[in-house]
Amino acid sequence: MPVLRNIGFLARCLPEGAQADIHPIRNAALAWEGKTIAWIGPEVDLPSEFQAWATEDAEGRLVVPGLVDCHTHLAFGGWRSDEFEARLLGKSYLEIAAAGGGIASTVRHTREATRDALLERCRGFLVGMARLGVTTVECKSGYGLSVERELVLLEVYAELARTERMGIVSTLLGAHIVPPEYRDRRTAYVDLLVDELIPAVARARLAQFCDVFVEQSAFSVAEARRILLAGKAVGLRPKLHADQLSDGGGALLAAEVGAASADHLEYISDSGIAAMARAGVVAVSLPLASVYLGQPPLRARRLIDAGVAVGVATDFNPGSAPSYDLHLALFLACTLERMTPAEVLKGATIIAARALGLEDSAGCLAARRAADFAVIDAPDPTFWMYHFRPETCLRTVRQGETVWFRGRSPSCA
Amino acid sequence: MPVLRNIGFLARCLPEGAQADIHPIRNAALAWEGKTIAWIGPEVDLPSEFQAWATEDAEGRLVVPGLVDCHTHLAFGGWRSDEFEARLLGKSYLEIAAAGGGIASTVRHTREATRDALLERCRGFLVGMARLGVTTVECKSGYGLSVERELVLLEVYAELARTERMGIVSTLLGAHIVPPEYRDRRTAYVDLLVDELIPAVARARLAQFCDVFVEQSAFSVAEARRILLAGKAVGLRPKLHADQLSDGGGALLAAEVGAASADHLEYISDSGIAAMARAGVVAVSLPLASVYLGQPPLRARRLIDAGVAVGVATDFNPGSAPSYDLHLALFLACTLERMTPAEVLKGATIIAARALGLEDSAGCLAARRAADFAVIDAPDPTFWMYHFRPETCLRTVRQGETVWFRGRSPSCA
Repeated sequence: MPVLRNIGFLARCLPEGAQADIHPIRNAALAWEGKTIAWIGPEVDLPSEFQAWATEDAEGRLVVPGLVDCHTHLAFGGWRSDEFEARLLGKSYLEIAAAGGGIASTVRHTREATRDALLERCRGFLVGMARLGVTTVECKSGYGLSVERELVLLEVYAELARTERMGIVSTLLGAHIVPPEYRDRRTAYVDLLVDELIPAVARARLAQFCDVFVEQSAFSVAEARRILLAGKAVGLRPKLHADQLSDGGGALLAAEVGAASADHLEYISDSGIAAMARAGVVAVSLPLASVYLGQPPLRARRLIDAGVAVGVATDFNPGSAPSYDLHLALFLACTLERMTPAEVLKGATIIAARALGLEDSAGCLAARRAADFAVIDAPDPTFWMYHFRPETCLRTVRQGETVWFRGRSPSCA
Repeated sequence: MPVLRNIGFLARCLPEGAQADIHPIRNAALAWEGKTIAWIGPEVDLPSEFQAWATEDAEGRLVVPGLVDCHTHLAFGGWRSDEFEARLLGKSYLEIAAAGGGIASTVRHTREATRDALLERCRGFLVGMARLGVTTVECKSGYGLSVERELVLLEVYAELARTERMGIVSTLLGAHIVPPEYRDRRTAYVDLLVDELIPAVARARLAQFCDVFVEQSAFSVAEARRILLAGKAVGLRPKLHADQLSDGGGALLAAEVGAASADHLEYISDSGIAAMARAGVVAVSLPLASVYLGQPPLRARRLIDAGVAVGVATDFNPGSAPSYDLHLALFLACTLERMTPAEVLKGATIIAARALGLEDSAGCLAARRAADFAVIDAPDPTFWMYHFRPETCLRTVRQGETVWFRGRSPSCA
């Protein structure tokens, strides 16, 4: 039953209020018991009953809710560093895909990988993420693209949820691309998803969400609508990859089907923004993907001004965003998309939790909530984003348990 | 007398050849004795005399020359995180400067700082840099802006050079801005630089370079010419901050005075590029500053195609680039400026060394050169930039001595 005292700046990130309102408490204390926060508030108000608890000293540092990475493709085989170099030299994402690279290349490698090999790699990535302050990760399938191999990926995630000290949310992304063997009969692939894969995933309770990549090179709006409604009918909430490479009407569809989130959105139209605001769909900014692909930055200010809640995530995958560095994604959302440090912090905590249907259990710090938090070597969120450097996360606590601890950061200035 | 064997990819980064030619050796070995490389080459060719030396195993990883950060403003007082947030909300660098913020604000805080406080902070930063693989750092004065206080900053650097396990190169940047007390008599300040500060620095051998910030808000081309030629006359090689916020003719002046480098250059003109190519001036890209300030990326491909060698550095300072993360700077030079991983690696090693007049002693790996190198958890430079994540530098060796060691990186995938 520890009490963390002398917290210089505690960002609670409650669900209510504007995107920039992170509900700060200066000179705060945080007490937890087992997996749950027992008390939180200004240290001077700490009730006497907690005075006897074991004290830990935050040394004036920043404490934030455990970060939520609400968009990753965690399990994959192989890498695609050759495409990274090809893109720098001018090849486009769609050109690379047309030449047999891109997602199809990762599908080949993932199908060849054993379940154990996939598990082992995912575990390594989750360790790296925990060292950044992340306590919850959304994981998409989408590199199997057959009933059998999509189930393998989702079972890998189920195994991680059982064994790793990380919150895991699983998303079926059977509709990532049309797999090569269905190229000339794409309707048959959509039938397979609707008639077999989605029901199988729902029966086995292997995912909470059903996602579709709506794009010229992937699925049309009409195909996506059919897939998402089929998922919704069996309890899988819709999510979309939308308007990433062109305005393909994905944001409008997200609003129409009541998606939990629409992600990417570099090319979202003004009518798409208005529709998402009306429907309360979370927009998820993926600035690493924008930067890796040389895309224009998301018009995040426009979305926020229109009343859309903007989450920020990594999109970690071996092609368009081969980095799980959520700290860097937040920094890029500030510098390239002009979100403020408070806005990106809320975007990677309670808003990301909302994009995962976890608004009642993750992403914010309050009594009776999970004791998921990170201690950051900065006096406040602005400084954390401003003086960007690695190794700023000193400690990560998930459900009351310390899952990462670093004594001190290399330069404490 | 150790031999590092089983190096998967060794990038020698010799001075000759194109920017993209990093002179790789696969399956390499590297032997050093004292401060110096004794032998380097394919492991199969390792001469018998080295077979008995103590063996260390690089486990197939990447070895690169110790990185050279050829542009930093290491010693400063205070921070300016408030300006970071103001810029995100739309204030420009020049607006902030006009309101008393910007460099002038750091000058106030630096003048108030004691020498010991400055030293202590610099030491912390150097520790953080060494953990990134950096073995040589250029350090500019420029926040003192009086004879006495500029000398203090350069003496701090001289002390670091004596006590820290890091190569230090000092640059006098007395011409950073015109200090507030000289606002209405700027010529008197230029006189002070030319008549007193530059001779004093040269006498005390406290700097190798003399730098000028050529910009509307700082110094004109005519003023810069006078200052740089005065420095050159007493042995301080010219360097320039040029064409950062507008095309101010800085690149042309750099070529005219035979500068070692011209840095920033986001707004360089085509004639500026041609002049730098003819004069052999190194262009130093500072992508962190571009990103922090919301500037357009440097046209690095244009410079490289014109035959200009492009270095890459951090510009670490509390205003326009409050990050010493050279790894991130290299990543941004790839993704935003379309330099290839090999090009940025050469840019932060032998080309950066050339920008510091160290082309004969730093930034490349060859027999009889200094044993300055880093072991990176990646199979090659492309993968290092592609799978961006913190904590990839496993070991940093400077002059044969291990100055940073990390057992393994968090995710070895």
